[in-house]
Amino acid sequence: MKFNVQRNQLMESVQDVMKAISSKTAIPILSGMKIDVTEEGVKLTGSDSDISIESFVPAEEEGIVYVENIEPGSIVLQAKYFPEIVRKLPEQTVEIESDEQFNVTIRSGSAEFNLNGQDAQEYPQLPKLHTENSFELSVDLLKDLIRQTVFAVSTSETRPILTGVNMSIKDQKLQFVATDSHRLAGRSIPLEDSANKELFSNIVIPGKSLNELNKILDDTQEKIEISVTENQILFRTKHLNFLSRLLDGNYPETSRLIPEQSKTNVMIDSKELLHSIDRASLLAKESRNNVVKLTTKENTSIEISSNSPEVGKVFEEVTADTIEGEELKISFSAKYMMDALKAINSEKVNISFTGAMRPFIIKPAEHEDEILQLILPVRTY
Amino acid sequence: MKFNVQRNQLMESVQDVMKAISSKTAIPILSGMKIDVTEEGVKLTGSDSDISIESFVPAEEEGIVYVENIEPGSIVLQAKYFPEIVRKLPEQTVEIESDEQFNVTIRSGSAEFNLNGQDAQEYPQLPKLHTENSFELSVDLLKDLIRQTVFAVSTSETRPILTGVNMSIKDQKLQFVATDSHRLAGRSIPLEDSANKELFSNIVIPGKSLNELNKILDDTQEKIEISVTENQILFRTKHLNFLSRLLDGNYPETSRLIPEQSKTNVMIDSKELLHSIDRASLLAKESRNNVVKLTTKENTSIEISSNSPEVGKVFEEVTADTIEGEELKISFSAKYMMDALKAINSEKVNISFTGAMRPFIIKPAEHEDEILQLILPVRTY
Repeated sequence: MKFNVQRNQLMESVQDVMKAISSKTAIPILSGMKIDVTEEGVKLTGSDSDISIESFVPAEEEGIVYVENIEPGSIVLQAKYFPEIVRKLPEQTVEIESDEQFNVTIRSGSAEFNLNGQDAQEYPQLPKLHTENSFELSVDLLKDLIRQTVFAVSTSETRPILTGVNMSIKDQKLQFVATDSHRLAGRSIPLEDSANKELFSNIVIPGKSLNELNKILDDTQEKIEISVTENQILFRTKHLNFLSRLLDGNYPETSRLIPEQSKTNVMIDSKELLHSIDRASLLAKESRNNVVKLTTKENTSIEISSNSPEVGKVFEEVTADTIEGEELKISFSAKYMMDALKAINSEKVNISFTGAMRPFIIKPAEHEDEILQLILPVRTY
Repeated sequence: MKFNVQRNQLMESVQDVMKAISSKTAIPILSGMKIDVTEEGVKLTGSDSDISIESFVPAEEEGIVYVENIEPGSIVLQAKYFPEIVRKLPEQTVEIESDEQFNVTIRSGSAEFNLNGQDAQEYPQLPKLHTENSFELSVDLLKDLIRQTVFAVSTSETRPILTGVNMSIKDQKLQFVATDSHRLAGRSIPLEDSANKELFSNIVIPGKSLNELNKILDDTQEKIEISVTENQILFRTKHLNFLSRLLDGNYPETSRLIPEQSKTNVMIDSKELLHSIDRASLLAKESRNNVVKLTTKENTSIEISSNSPEVGKVFEEVTADTIEGEELKISFSAKYMMDALKAINSEKVNISFTGAMRPFIIKPAEHEDEILQLILPVRTY
């Protein structure tokens, strides 16, 4: 195996696949990175058996040559040192070569690294997904779907199914839902192509996988292709294959958690509310489990407050656009509220309360059918 | 006590004094920040008893009013929450007020914080240094002196005196020296004012104090005034007093460590050498204690190499400007060499070796009398 490659392209691909490689793997060879070279280019592979990432550097694209002097072959390299080596090489081009004893030589300028490699035959085969049954989204829309829901997955393994995001297609809509049973985040988008509805109904993708995918994908309007099988999901862009296992089990029916009626409705500036809750939570972080109190006042005024006896107390009045319905005092996690407001990312939000002991809903003032954030209040005495 | 202050000015001062405040202090009140308000302005004080920092916000300066509505007084505030509170306040001005029960109210816009304060009478008095016996430097020159030496202090408490930087005045020169007994870093500057030589001869400033001071000082050509007593040193700028205790004991005589003759002299590009050592050290980090080897070759060529049997090996040829004297193979810590080259920060460096088992010296090609870095080689078999 031998090839010359542009260092910057190699570096980008290395950084992508490193997201799947863990040094603490039960399968030693998975602590390495597989390099496959063909006349088409260089494919790098990393996997921790939950997530597998393949990144491709084409030999040539749009008239630009990225890989040259190709002698096809494969090798597995220790991933621990490889990213730093590539990053610090002195020249823009890199020559990588392996011999039959799996010795790898990396040359750039007058620098030469000799590394011990491993036989690529010993690297596990990734499952091949049939990509005929697939649908497409724009990358930035997928990133929105992830960003607006994944923060609400459970971090506890008590109910493993809740550590994932529920992806479903129903009534021509693609929906992402996550809940840790204290809050729920949901986002849906219309799917234009009606053929999609037959692909799958209801799967659960590990939150960790979606977080890593979100980090790798740049904000672009390019398309990403999504294919689902019984226990795997594949996200595919031009030069990237991102494969994740799915979580086993049935995701709970969340729609019945969402109250259908409300008693107090507030429309308010999202940033003003966010900042005042941020301030109120400063003193509440330790002693009160980050709980703040919201109280409706006269003249569309809302008081945000918290009280930590050993430290002190905070209160602040925020003027809402409108307050309709019953007076209300309610306590909730400042963190959950801030997460929800950041995820909605809208200038104005509508908050619908159904009393101090019932879950409440936050939605953007516009496109209110697409995003829903639900938070359970905290009982205080 | 009561005053209104510009938030940005308050924030800067708070950040400065926070560098001296530790939450793990044996004296509980030192986990707080003292605020003293007079008609002149607001003085903040933080201390961990090794380092004390006072930062001043003037009531008015160059026609700009920073502090208003002053009712003089003092209070001690819990420092843990204060910086975040100030940073997140909604408006540009802040009102701070305390009552006789040491309750502190912080108001900005419609936000109000009530914090429990403590009696400022209970805060330890900082020693008053006589600042008549002082000398001045420009701030950026002091920062250079610190930056070029402090990294070489010992991190081990085996010989506590080596955790400090030795500051001395001799032959009209101000000199900083630090050593951990494996390497030594020295920097000296001429002192113009001959009166200075009577101030002190030889003191040792804790490395930690100098690191914190370096962080607080901005790169400016403004003057900083330095005053020394038997066991304290005071650094003083317009709005800042930085007080550190000195280390007890005699600093070892380091001048005899420095070889007077050399057998091999190399002049080389500093960055090229730095980067090649950086690359060679990539594989050496764990298995070989970060040791690299330097070998002189023919035609002013130098080979930098390292070999870690389990991982692999690296070698690289670097062309020196000149090599004079005996051939040489020498091994040394890549980290020490990189620290030294970064500290020298000169385009070309001269390296003077006296054999593979003797300390070697690195100096800048220009101003070679001002900076000296010495490294002990590592014995390899």
